Amino acid sequence: MNFTIQNVLIATENAYLTLDVQVIDGKIAAIAPDLDVVGNTIDGSNKLLLPGFFNAHTHSSEMWQRGIMSMLPLELWLGELYDFAPLDLEKVYLSALGTAVETLLSGGTSVVDHLVLTPGEELETIAAAVRAYEEVGIRAFIAPLIQDRSLTAGIPGGESNQNCTYFRSTAATLEIIEEAVRQFHRPEAGISIVVAPTGIQLCSDSLFIGCIELSDRHDLCRHSHLLETKAQEKLAQEKYGCTAVEHLQRIGYLSDRTSLAHCVWLNDNDITILAQTQCTVVHNPLSNLRLGSGIAPILKYLQAGVNVSFGCDGASSNDSQDLLEAIKIGSILHNTTDLDYHNWITPRKSVEMASLGGAKGLNVADKLGSLTLGKQADLVMYDLTSLSLLPRTDPIGLLVLGRPINVVHSAWVNGKQIVSNGQVNTIKVDDLQQELFKRSQWETQRKSPTVAEIETHYRQVMDI
Amino acid sequence: MNFTIQNVLIATENAYLTLDVQVIDGKIAAIAPDLDVVGNTIDGSNKLLLPGFFNAHTHSSEMWQRGIMSMLPLELWLGELYDFAPLDLEKVYLSALGTAVETLLSGGTSVVDHLVLTPGEELETIAAAVRAYEEVGIRAFIAPLIQDRSLTAGIPGGESNQNCTYFRSTAATLEIIEEAVRQFHRPEAGISIVVAPTGIQLCSDSLFIGCIELSDRHDLCRHSHLLETKAQEKLAQEKYGCTAVEHLQRIGYLSDRTSLAHCVWLNDNDITILAQTQCTVVHNPLSNLRLGSGIAPILKYLQAGVNVSFGCDGASSNDSQDLLEAIKIGSILHNTTDLDYHNWITPRKSVEMASLGGAKGLNVADKLGSLTLGKQADLVMYDLTSLSLLPRTDPIGLLVLGRPINVVHSAWVNGKQIVSNGQVNTIKVDDLQQELFKRSQWETQRKSPTVAEIETHYRQVMDI
Repeated sequence: MNFTIQNVLIATENAYLTLDVQVIDGKIAAIAPDLDVVGNTIDGSNKLLLPGFFNAHTHSSEMWQRGIMSMLPLELWLGELYDFAPLDLEKVYLSALGTAVETLLSGGTSVVDHLVLTPGEELETIAAAVRAYEEVGIRAFIAPLIQDRSLTAGIPGGESNQNCTYFRSTAATLEIIEEAVRQFHRPEAGISIVVAPTGIQLCSDSLFIGCIELSDRHDLCRHSHLLETKAQEKLAQEKYGCTAVEHLQRIGYLSDRTSLAHCVWLNDNDITILAQTQCTVVHNPLSNLRLGSGIAPILKYLQAGVNVSFGCDGASSNDSQDLLEAIKIGSILHNTTDLDYHNWITPRKSVEMASLGGAKGLNVADKLGSLTLGKQADLVMYDLTSLSLLPRTDPIGLLVLGRPINVVHSAWVNGKQIVSNGQVNTIKVDDLQQELFKRSQWETQRKSPTVAEIETHYRQVMDI
Repeated sequence: MNFTIQNVLIATENAYLTLDVQVIDGKIAAIAPDLDVVGNTIDGSNKLLLPGFFNAHTHSSEMWQRGIMSMLPLELWLGELYDFAPLDLEKVYLSALGTAVETLLSGGTSVVDHLVLTPGEELETIAAAVRAYEEVGIRAFIAPLIQDRSLTAGIPGGESNQNCTYFRSTAATLEIIEEAVRQFHRPEAGISIVVAPTGIQLCSDSLFIGCIELSDRHDLCRHSHLLETKAQEKLAQEKYGCTAVEHLQRIGYLSDRTSLAHCVWLNDNDITILAQTQCTVVHNPLSNLRLGSGIAPILKYLQAGVNVSFGCDGASSNDSQDLLEAIKIGSILHNTTDLDYHNWITPRKSVEMASLGGAKGLNVADKLGSLTLGKQADLVMYDLTSLSLLPRTDPIGLLVLGRPINVVHSAWVNGKQIVSNGQVNTIKVDDLQQELFKRSQWETQRKSPTVAEIETHYRQVMDI
C-alpha cells in the first residue's frame, strides 16, 4: 500500500504548488518536490489532490425511493417514505453500495449513514450496510437510526400525540446498539458505530441518556437530526418549554463528538450553546430546499466558531448522493442571507468544511481531513482536463462552484486505492446498476395512506 | 432526416406510455404504438423522450473566467469580470462551442446567448458565436448585449454617475444590431437575433425605444436583465421615480416576446404588470445565489400566470452550463418561500417550464417546446439505465430532482441528430477540450483595479 504521486497540484494557503506525495503504510509520509519513488508511481500531472470529503449525513436505503417522493414537508414526507419503505436486506446492501459509489465519485471518502433499521432485523440491517461499505472500501460511520416514539409524535399539536408508544422498548433499542458496537465497531478497519437517536421529535430523554452513556463507555460519536423544520421548533417548546438545544445541553448530549444534521431553526442563544459545547453542524442544503425546511443560518454558525460540514442527506430528499453538488449549493445558498460579501463562503473554505470539518465532527481530525504528514491517506485526485473543469482557472473554484462531471480520477482510503481512472475498482458498478434496475420499476403516482391520515392535522397546526 | 424512435417512454398527463415517434422532414409526424418505420430506426427502449430544454439566458464568453471570479455581488463582480475580459475572436468561438456542448449534454437544444460584444469587433463577435452554434447544430438565439452608459452608472448613489458616457453612441449601437439582423437572422435555419439592451441600469430610454422599433420592424424577440439586485431596485427609483417595471411598461418595452432575466426584486404590482403584458421571466437560480442577488419570487410569478423559464446565466456566475442543475435548484429553491407545499413546483411542471416555457419566451411555442404533432423535432432522449437515474422510480422525478450524470443519450435539433450515444457528433469535443486547455492557465489570485476603485462607494450606498 505504498505509493508516490508525482507532479500533482496541491493547494497551499493562497496558491498551488506542483509536488510529489509519498504514502507509506496508509499514511501521508512526505509532501515535497522531486521525492524518491516509494512503492507504485502515480502520475499526478494535470490533476489536483485534496483530502477526501465527508458525506456527513445520509440514509442509504432512501435510494430506493429517490425521484418518486411527493413534494411535501418533512413531517408528511416521512409518512409517505415509511408507507413504501419495506426493504429486504439485499436492498439495504445494494443501496449502501450505491451510496458509497456516488459519494466516492463526487469526492467523498467517508460516509455517515444514519441507517434506518428494519424492525426485527436490526443487526442484520447493520451487517448488510457494513458488508457493502467494506466491499467498496469507503470509510463508514454507521449511525443506526433509533427512536422510541412513533411517527405522529413528531408533529406538534398535543392531541395527536396520545398513541405514540413505539413497538420496542427504550432498553431493548439500546441493547441493539450495544450489540452492534460489539459486532461491528472497528474504527481502525474503517467501520465505526455512532449512537444516533433520530432527534428530539421522536426520542425520549431516556433514549438520549442511554446513548450518552453508551457513547461515553465505548468512545462513540453521537449523531442526531436537530431542528430541521419549523414544526420541530414548535414541538420542542411544547415538550420542554425551552428550545431543543437548551434541553439537549441540559441532559448532556452536546459535546465535541456530537454532530447535528440540519440545524435550520436555531436562535442566536442556541448558536452560542453549539459553539460552547463544540458541536458540529452538518449542513444538508438540498434536502432543506426539497422539503421546504428552510435555509440553515450557516454564516452565523461560522461566525460563532461552530464547526460545519456537509451532507447529502438521504437520496429521497435530495435526490442524489453527489457530494460536490451539496457542497456547491451549501456554500452559495447563504450569499442571499448576508449583504456583506466578506462573510460569504469561499471555495477554499468549502473544501476545508467538507474535509477537516467532516473529520472534526467525527472526532478524527487528528487522523483525517487534511494533507498533513502522519495523517491517514484518505485522498482524492481530480482530473483537471475534464471539459467541466476547463478552461483552466482556479482548480478549487472550478471544482466547488462549477458542475464537475466525471472528474474523480483516483481515490484512496487508508492508502488503499479504490478508484482508478475514474472507475471504482473494488466492486463491479455495472453489476450494481443491473441489480438496481432489476429490483425496481418505473412508477408514477402513489397514494400514501399515512399522508391522507395526518395531513389535515398538520395543515391545522402549521397554520397553512 | 426522417427517423422512427421505437419503444421510448413518453410522459402522458400523469403517467408514461411506451410508444414510437416518427419524425419526417424535421417535424414530429406521429406518436403512437407500433408505428411503421420511416427512415432510420432508433432504439428507445429504457429511454425517456422529452422536448429539448431552453438555456434561456447565458453569456457564453464568461466561460473563460468560470471558477476564478471572487465572491462578490453583481455590481462589483462585473468590475472584476470586465477587468479580465479581453477576448480574441477565437476565444469567443470556443466558449460558444463549450456553452453549446454543456447545454446539449444537460438536455438543452436551444440557447439564448446574451453575447458580450468586443468593442470595435461587434459584428465579428456575433459571427464567431454564429459559427460555433451552426457547427454544433444547437438552436441559438443570439442577443447581442448592448448598453449606452458605462459600468459605474449601474450603481445607485447620484454622484458617481457623472462620467458615465459610453464610448459609442446609441445610434451607432442600434446600427450594429440592424446590421447583425441583416447578416445573421435566419430563424428557419436555427439562428435568430434578439434585441437585448442589458437593462435599465446601463441603458437610456432612447436605446430601449430604438430596440422596440427594431423588434417591431424585423419581428425580433426582446431580452434584458431586470432587477437582478437590490441595488438596481434602488437605482430605478433614483432614475425614474417609479419601479423599473412601471417604467418599461410606460415606454412600451414589455410584450409577449419580451423575456426578462432574473426578476428578483419585483413587487406585487410589478408582477401583475408582467402578467398583463405577457412577459417571460427567465429564472437563473445559480447566479442569483452565487452573486447573493436574492431569491426570485418564482412561485408568485406562476400563481400570477407569468410564464417562467430557466437559464444557466453566464458561466462566471454559475459556474457551469448544466441546465439540469439550474432546473433542479430553480425548482426546489422556492419550497423555502412558501409553507404551503401545494404551491411547490413539481418535476413535471419544471419540465414544462424548461421546454414550453422557454419556447413561449422566444415566441416560438407554436413550433417548439412540446412533443406535439407538427412541431419541430427538437428532442432529447435520456438513458434511464445510468446509475444516477437508478433504481427505477419516476423518470422525470429522477431527472429533475436527482443529479443526472452522463444521461443524455441522443439529441436532435430540427430533426437533425447532434448527440448520439452520449457523444456530440457534430464537433470533436476532445479537440475543444485541448483548445480550452491550451489557451488558459491555472490561476489563483487576481486583483481587480475596478473593484478597488468602486468598492467603497458601493458599500456606502448599500449600507454594508
